[in-house]
Amino acid sequence: MLTKENIADWFKQLQLETCQALEIADGKAKFSSDKWSREEGGGGDSRIVQHGNVIEKGGVNFSAVWGNAPAMLVKELNLSSNNSRFFASGVSIVIHPENPFVPIIHMNVRYFEIDENTWWFGGGIDLTPIYVDKEEAHFFHNQLKIACDKHDPNFYSDFKKWADDYFFIKHRNETRGIGGIFFDKLNSGKTKEKLFAFVKEIGNSFAPTYTQIIGKKRNLAFTAENKQWQFLRRGRYAEFNLVYDRGTKFGLETNGRVESILMSLPPQANWIYNHLPIRNSLENQTVTFLRKGIQWSDV
Amino acid sequence: MLTKENIADWFKQLQLETCQALEIADGKAKFSSDKWSREEGGGGDSRIVQHGNVIEKGGVNFSAVWGNAPAMLVKELNLSSNNSRFFASGVSIVIHPENPFVPIIHMNVRYFEIDENTWWFGGGIDLTPIYVDKEEAHFFHNQLKIACDKHDPNFYSDFKKWADDYFFIKHRNETRGIGGIFFDKLNSGKTKEKLFAFVKEIGNSFAPTYTQIIGKKRNLAFTAENKQWQFLRRGRYAEFNLVYDRGTKFGLETNGRVESILMSLPPQANWIYNHLPIRNSLENQTVTFLRKGIQWSDV
Repeated sequence: MLTKENIADWFKQLQLETCQALEIADGKAKFSSDKWSREEGGGGDSRIVQHGNVIEKGGVNFSAVWGNAPAMLVKELNLSSNNSRFFASGVSIVIHPENPFVPIIHMNVRYFEIDENTWWFGGGIDLTPIYVDKEEAHFFHNQLKIACDKHDPNFYSDFKKWADDYFFIKHRNETRGIGGIFFDKLNSGKTKEKLFAFVKEIGNSFAPTYTQIIGKKRNLAFTAENKQWQFLRRGRYAEFNLVYDRGTKFGLETNGRVESILMSLPPQANWIYNHLPIRNSLENQTVTFLRKGIQWSDV
Repeated sequence: MLTKENIADWFKQLQLETCQALEIADGKAKFSSDKWSREEGGGGDSRIVQHGNVIEKGGVNFSAVWGNAPAMLVKELNLSSNNSRFFASGVSIVIHPENPFVPIIHMNVRYFEIDENTWWFGGGIDLTPIYVDKEEAHFFHNQLKIACDKHDPNFYSDFKKWADDYFFIKHRNETRGIGGIFFDKLNSGKTKEKLFAFVKEIGNSFAPTYTQIIGKKRNLAFTAENKQWQFLRRGRYAEFNLVYDRGTKFGLETNGRVESILMSLPPQANWIYNHLPIRNSLENQTVTFLRKGIQWSDV
């Protein structure tokens, strides 16, 4: 039988393998490990990298926490008792590369359990290019589609749409990047084992997909103007994470470990009042791609 | 009789005079005016400055808007009808100086009206030094105390405490800076004319207080380390504004003018994972002052 411990063990393993793959791809970056525990039960291991060859700042965080279900959760799930216990485990990754032609990436896979009848998987992966490159966007989405299709013919289209809606900066009327997939409360239609196999597929697809993207872009020359555009787009990334991201909001509201939650913030972000890219520029072209509904896997 | 038009006219005048005083103090910065209107009624004038001698990025924004009261307001105020009209006007200021020894400042004064029985004033002013200077903190709070005391012996202590609670970054367990005053829904205990006189006093105190602070610090030499600390503290400023600031949240949720709302964000902010200032450093000393309840006017 698949237990929560089995699942958390696999997440821990994913963290290790992902850090190793990123270190090899970067060539210089070494993750440092910051283990933490929480009084109420459980803890985590935040693996952080700064000043690599490719990665300017990034984190691959594992956590497995448990305790009494927070009040907001008891209410949301209509739990019968105030003594409900919860268990949550997952891996969260955000990588901010130095080179503006290498996209920011985010992935999260997670498992949540109240008891043997109330549990689910969630997760997502999305790419935020500073400069949208159609070929790269197609490759990224196609990799996700291949991974999804092995498990369910509807997963990619359903979860791609969900990502378009989730990774959206409402006040800017812009998507955060070119999207990816997002899913939550996945607990039906298949056995728990089969759903877990899907989550593992997504988790395992992260490193090969992203290291291939890094490889194609890491040596591209860039200008101060490219870097300035990156700082502005990272400003949008900070806006999304602080205003909308559910994991961030939940973490900050429930007194989570702040440095681990906010590892997603960029090393540097800039804001210029009412910045508008020049017409016909690469920057402007990127903005035109920051909208929902583009079928990147078909481009 | 004091009308909403009288009040908005005075806010507009405050904007003009404040911009003039800041331009004189800066010596180079010139505000540019960005007028906007909203379909539902009213509009504003965002006056923005970038790359001055002292001011790296700042805004002095005026707005006067009206229309049907948004649903969240109808609910919050228990308004009898869904056809309630509202009127809101105010001035908002945020200044991010270049020199890390010149503190960030924020001020807002505002008036809100549903009808002749339902109206209030609100406002606040707070100082965010990158390096807390006790003498400067005392001067700033004492200026506010003098202004408040002319109108009510309890205003300073009441509104100082409110600012400590409001300008607080809960997830960091830190105040944003050294506080100041904050008040909202001020509509009783005095005539409308007398409350307006208080709000004018606060509005008028901004320029003389801040230009004196600028004058004392503008020529201090600073290092790359001082600048780095400024970028990190500005990161906290961005966290406060995007996660907690009520005006920002209300503006983003009600489809306000994004560039005017987010003019408060710094020109550059940095995040370093788990940055801890060196023991006994000036940076560390500053952090020890970022807590509620320090009676700066008595220091």
